[in-house]
Amino acid sequence: MIESAIKERLVAALGAEYVLDSNESKLVYSYDATPGMQAMPDVIVFPGSTEDVQRIVKICQETGTPIVARGSGTNLSGGTCPLEGGVVITFQRMNHILELDEENLTLTVQPGVITQDMIKYVEKNGLFYPPDPSSMKISTIGGNIAENSGGLRGLKYGVTRDYVLGLTAVLANGEVIRTGGKLAKDVAGYDMTRLLVGSEGTLAVITEAILKLIPMPETKKTLLAVYEDMDQAAQSVSAIIAHKIIPTTLEFLDQATIKVVEAFAHVGLPTEAGAVLLIEQDGAPEVVDRDIEKMAKLCQELGASSVEKANSEEEADALRSARRAALSACARLKPTTILEDATVPRSKVAEMVRAINEITEKYGLEVCTFGHAGDGNLHPTFLTDARNTEEMARVEQAFGEIFAKAIALGGTITGEHGVGAMKAPYLEWKVGKAGIGAMRAIKTALDPHNLLNPGKLFSESAEGVFS
Amino acid sequence: MIESAIKERLVAALGAEYVLDSNESKLVYSYDATPGMQAMPDVIVFPGSTEDVQRIVKICQETGTPIVARGSGTNLSGGTCPLEGGVVITFQRMNHILELDEENLTLTVQPGVITQDMIKYVEKNGLFYPPDPSSMKISTIGGNIAENSGGLRGLKYGVTRDYVLGLTAVLANGEVIRTGGKLAKDVAGYDMTRLLVGSEGTLAVITEAILKLIPMPETKKTLLAVYEDMDQAAQSVSAIIAHKIIPTTLEFLDQATIKVVEAFAHVGLPTEAGAVLLIEQDGAPEVVDRDIEKMAKLCQELGASSVEKANSEEEADALRSARRAALSACARLKPTTILEDATVPRSKVAEMVRAINEITEKYGLEVCTFGHAGDGNLHPTFLTDARNTEEMARVEQAFGEIFAKAIALGGTITGEHGVGAMKAPYLEWKVGKAGIGAMRAIKTALDPHNLLNPGKLFSESAEGVFS
Repeated sequence: MIESAIKERLVAALGAEYVLDSNESKLVYSYDATPGMQAMPDVIVFPGSTEDVQRIVKICQETGTPIVARGSGTNLSGGTCPLEGGVVITFQRMNHILELDEENLTLTVQPGVITQDMIKYVEKNGLFYPPDPSSMKISTIGGNIAENSGGLRGLKYGVTRDYVLGLTAVLANGEVIRTGGKLAKDVAGYDMTRLLVGSEGTLAVITEAILKLIPMPETKKTLLAVYEDMDQAAQSVSAIIAHKIIPTTLEFLDQATIKVVEAFAHVGLPTEAGAVLLIEQDGAPEVVDRDIEKMAKLCQELGASSVEKANSEEEADALRSARRAALSACARLKPTTILEDATVPRSKVAEMVRAINEITEKYGLEVCTFGHAGDGNLHPTFLTDARNTEEMARVEQAFGEIFAKAIALGGTITGEHGVGAMKAPYLEWKVGKAGIGAMRAIKTALDPHNLLNPGKLFSESAEGVFS
Repeated sequence: MIESAIKERLVAALGAEYVLDSNESKLVYSYDATPGMQAMPDVIVFPGSTEDVQRIVKICQETGTPIVARGSGTNLSGGTCPLEGGVVITFQRMNHILELDEENLTLTVQPGVITQDMIKYVEKNGLFYPPDPSSMKISTIGGNIAENSGGLRGLKYGVTRDYVLGLTAVLANGEVIRTGGKLAKDVAGYDMTRLLVGSEGTLAVITEAILKLIPMPETKKTLLAVYEDMDQAAQSVSAIIAHKIIPTTLEFLDQATIKVVEAFAHVGLPTEAGAVLLIEQDGAPEVVDRDIEKMAKLCQELGASSVEKANSEEEADALRSARRAALSACARLKPTTILEDATVPRSKVAEMVRAINEITEKYGLEVCTFGHAGDGNLHPTFLTDARNTEEMARVEQAFGEIFAKAIALGGTITGEHGVGAMKAPYLEWKVGKAGIGAMRAIKTALDPHNLLNPGKLFSESAEGVFS
């Protein structure tokens, strides 16, 4: 609990209407989309400018108060759960698109802009912002930057990191830094822009961003390949890349996911199939046509029982939306869905899916696996019930084995969801003692009193968070 | 001067043939491609493995000896000049391509591989590594990574940073970290990969890298647009981008550069022209043809006196090679060429070129300006004589004004050459006091005794290095 004097200072800095501490407000900001994680903040503040954020950070710094910056709280790693209480900074007021610069192909935004609104705005102007996390209807760009969000178009276009050119951020000491700019090239000192992208609010509070845009692809086509055997789907992924085609999207749904998604979305997915691939290509019409034909042929050659092109943008959109709804669809079946994002080199996708299925069986659990096959970024999603502590313990053991397997295959514990609190105990498995040491040194250098999102990324123990 | 006991330890660790300290050897490693910078190392070592580098770093750490890791020394910012003596680590023995993984489209390399050799090797396998610094015939990939090198294809394909997926590096404490992997997505902790890329050897010694490859574009075409007026060339650059075409290359040569390059390379450049643009597009044949036609038309509409397509790959290659030879061509005219890389948003290129010309005139100097117009990354190159201290003082004043102007236009002091020793006094102009503070904090956290490439990036004074 923070002292009332601190709240009074925040009210004096921002005005009473922008400082909330009712129990209802605290409850609303006590959790994010991560199951089983909740902690009450002491106060929620609504800054209107970088200067407001500076005032907040300075008050927190002087009083040793934890700071958790937060977008829409869609993250799945407990990243915005205020584990040690303190001040939650939320960006509802700082939700403006500040400038579209068509000459330099940049967009300057405040952190509170909703990702999908921003993407639509950009597309209206014939331009393209590729990163499209599944949560984009709700998520904010500030949250995407803090988490280095991925999405379905990552295979061809990369992730959020690849589209952030510059940042304005408030450091733990209350100073403002401005990194990068409307620049394709900038090597003036360390790459602070990319150090802050994906730093999960632990190094600075981001208050403005310059994003890179690219021309809108002229056209896009969609393919659905159905397989009896999951291995054939995985082989198709490898074959497409080996034939030097990089499609926009190469999504994988396993049998369990197909059933769940079809029951939810009714888009005509073949519920008896072993796996499906949702494949998209965009670009110049000639190239898209050629690539789509080639990929259809490859999928057929590798044993797809059917390969169908979407006949219209509506049909394609229904398929995409169905895929994006996979998590929601799973969430209808059991009280708790725990979705992970272990990621492997793409050549190891089949092996990883098999391992997930074996591990699931071993622990007597129910899993749906889907994800970005082209990226090797899978989302094994356990259907469980947080109130069943015995089952949750098995889920945790299963995840431990999945992470270990992913690392053994040259992969990582998290491809796009972040470490947060959930995966902090496993970070060392990926980066090693020396890697953790280096990351901790950076954290301590920039935030010596551990005020920025404490309890995230780094864990004192190697134990899981459910236990 | 380091003590002979240290040399003896290095000999014991590596073998006598891999530890040099003759005066001749020290002289060879006392400078890089930066004019007017020279400092003698105490010893030069030739490690054969990451473990060797670890042994070297540990000896240096225990004895407080400076460490300068070095590729071919082509850098233009004094980045590899051993300002405080100590040990130069050179990677001639660690020059192997370790693995081409065609399924995951990655290449694993040691730092000493020559950039162009690597690019040719990859292209023989139908794959593409886009970053192509002008020094690539001589430069090493390790040097490219340390400097985050750019090149002529940066506009469309990005820079070295965008192609580094993972690194093995030895920290100042002698520990080895392994970052990233053969992974399109990895958000496990801070982005150490990109923090090390462009850190100029000040945070760690890079001993291995996993690089991202992409499919080789099917075809490429080249266009040369000639202008009487530099402004028309700059307007053409803006118009091309505004028409949503992102060419591979959009190179600018001003009148002075055209003359110098033509006298050197004899490729038929129009020596009376005010400026030329060298434009290239690659990709699928249909798209390349269409883009090239559109760009040719745009250039004509904006006043180009001639727009010609290269008739063969030989002709195109001659033009590219001529452009790449711009620095060598300038170097024939005067004893000293000082080439800078102030970078601005691309919409400000014309304004920046005008400012460079005004500043040059004001200080009575001779300049050739060329560079990556599509990136806003210009290379004003002063033709001077380092022995003429009075003129060098004027050159330095001119650069100060050029950097200030670039920053005023929303640009940076260095787009691709790095800060090194040359631009250390100006770094604060770009990143501010708070930015320098954050960078210094990171440096101190990872290298508390300032052993890794001391004297680079950070400057005690705001004075220039020539004075």
